[in-house]
Amino acid sequence: MSILVVGSVAFDSVETPFGKGENVLGGSATYFSTSASFFTDVNLVAVVGEDFPQEHFDFLKSRNINVDGLSRSPGKTFHWKGKYGYDLNEAQTLATHLNVFEHFKPVIPAAYKDAEYLFLANIDPELQMEVLNQVRKPRVIACDTMNFWIASKPDALKKVIERVDILVINEGEARQFSQEANLVKAARTILDLGLKTLIIKRGEYGVLMFNGASVFAAPAYPLEEVFDPTGAGDTFAGGFMGYLANTGDTSEAGIRQALIFGSVMASFNVEDFSLNRMKSLGYKEIEERYRSFKALTHFEGLPSL
Amino acid sequence: MSILVVGSVAFDSVETPFGKGENVLGGSATYFSTSASFFTDVNLVAVVGEDFPQEHFDFLKSRNINVDGLSRSPGKTFHWKGKYGYDLNEAQTLATHLNVFEHFKPVIPAAYKDAEYLFLANIDPELQMEVLNQVRKPRVIACDTMNFWIASKPDALKKVIERVDILVINEGEARQFSQEANLVKAARTILDLGLKTLIIKRGEYGVLMFNGASVFAAPAYPLEEVFDPTGAGDTFAGGFMGYLANTGDTSEAGIRQALIFGSVMASFNVEDFSLNRMKSLGYKEIEERYRSFKALTHFEGLPSL
Repeated sequence: MSILVVGSVAFDSVETPFGKGENVLGGSATYFSTSASFFTDVNLVAVVGEDFPQEHFDFLKSRNINVDGLSRSPGKTFHWKGKYGYDLNEAQTLATHLNVFEHFKPVIPAAYKDAEYLFLANIDPELQMEVLNQVRKPRVIACDTMNFWIASKPDALKKVIERVDILVINEGEARQFSQEANLVKAARTILDLGLKTLIIKRGEYGVLMFNGASVFAAPAYPLEEVFDPTGAGDTFAGGFMGYLANTGDTSEAGIRQALIFGSVMASFNVEDFSLNRMKSLGYKEIEERYRSFKALTHFEGLPSL
Repeated sequence: MSILVVGSVAFDSVETPFGKGENVLGGSATYFSTSASFFTDVNLVAVVGEDFPQEHFDFLKSRNINVDGLSRSPGKTFHWKGKYGYDLNEAQTLATHLNVFEHFKPVIPAAYKDAEYLFLANIDPELQMEVLNQVRKPRVIACDTMNFWIASKPDALKKVIERVDILVINEGEARQFSQEANLVKAARTILDLGLKTLIIKRGEYGVLMFNGASVFAAPAYPLEEVFDPTGAGDTFAGGFMGYLANTGDTSEAGIRQALIFGSVMASFNVEDFSLNRMKSLGYKEIEERYRSFKALTHFEGLPSL
């Protein structure tokens, strides 16, 4: 099954202690789509400006991402500028130029309206709602958000969450949104809005998933070189949703495997700037790292003493 | 096999957002011993003052902890005063009164010198070395330390580490000691001192273990109520070493199981102030939580797409 994703396609200027990238390809929908494309077909809805080069369109197409919904508007492409210190969990935003994104109104092409898998990347919750109002009956809807929307549009965000199945947010955002310091209590509060699944991203510490009554913890893959964490969360979501869309298996076992594939994809993405690592990545490597995650976490059952 | 532990027995005054305890039983060796006592016999070497009540001696004895090496000196017992905010990973030390601990010279009773399992809790590395010089040939030696010794006595600490098998430290301490921001690189640098195993504690995020060429990640148990994280690290170490001493199994599989038992014990300890939770804990509960850790982390192997 194909996935529909609505979000941002952007230029990023990123500085980390290990190097920098100027005006490189970025954006939540870009990272998500590229990651998901290793598992399934992706339909991308976003907007770019006149300055968005053909080379990037070509890259997305080469990954089998349908860009019929990627419209070009007069003006400049969304530009994010950020910096990371040695604590790669936290980006410092230096500048956000919304540009053409400022007046973005997502229009879902007719051919995408029957999407069975939908990912609402981090955009204004009012726009996320507009997307929900244009699609028919997706089997699985997941969404992301950020601290800015939690603070500025909590009610609109709540209405979106009430209509989605899976929410993917950061640890700090979960605490902020629920007003609970304890993460398990925070999760319960958010799940009570009607979610089936809540996935809490903890950066280099991995992911905690609350799925009905079950809780699943997966570490991040311990890497010797982390160059650029930009897009790790969207890359995670892309691997997760991509695998779900590929298999259609939303059982507890299936959703846990999906979460590991998401973690695998994120672990590759941080190894280089922008989407560079995705460009060289092959499926054999993905399988190999899935096995490494198993080796990293496996232990024997209860011994009798 | 029994374990020998050398460390502190103390009074703690602890404040958390959820309550406080004044002059409650604490100390690294106390937490370690109590936790380990669920798995094996423990011989405790430490010092207390004249103010240390019989009730605490009785508690330790009731846990089958041999206190022949717990000497009483003129003066007051070591007293630590600390405070936690909502970020329960980090204690703020308000006061440290070493009292009788200031002139503590560990003397290992003759009956303990053939100890096969030795834990050097967090004390001055010069004292840790004195302990090493008094024991004959332990099969497994583990040690802990803290930022204060890393900063003030790095050379003495290095000499200790060169003689132990297992080092158990915090994430921040691993970075501080190795001068490496990346945790995997930090671990490699520390392992190069000659350790077999390095266990890095990450508070509510769990534990990362480097054992030879293998890496193992275990989450902390997600709890709805964390009252007091004091002693969690020593309780972890107690469960870990206690299980190892019980089984003698230092294979990769055995050491991973030991790490989960350590995590289980720590997860109980933080549920109440001081050692209160340990006082009510039963082995059935430990087994039950071990199974919960398995359920929390298990996922199926690589699927074929």
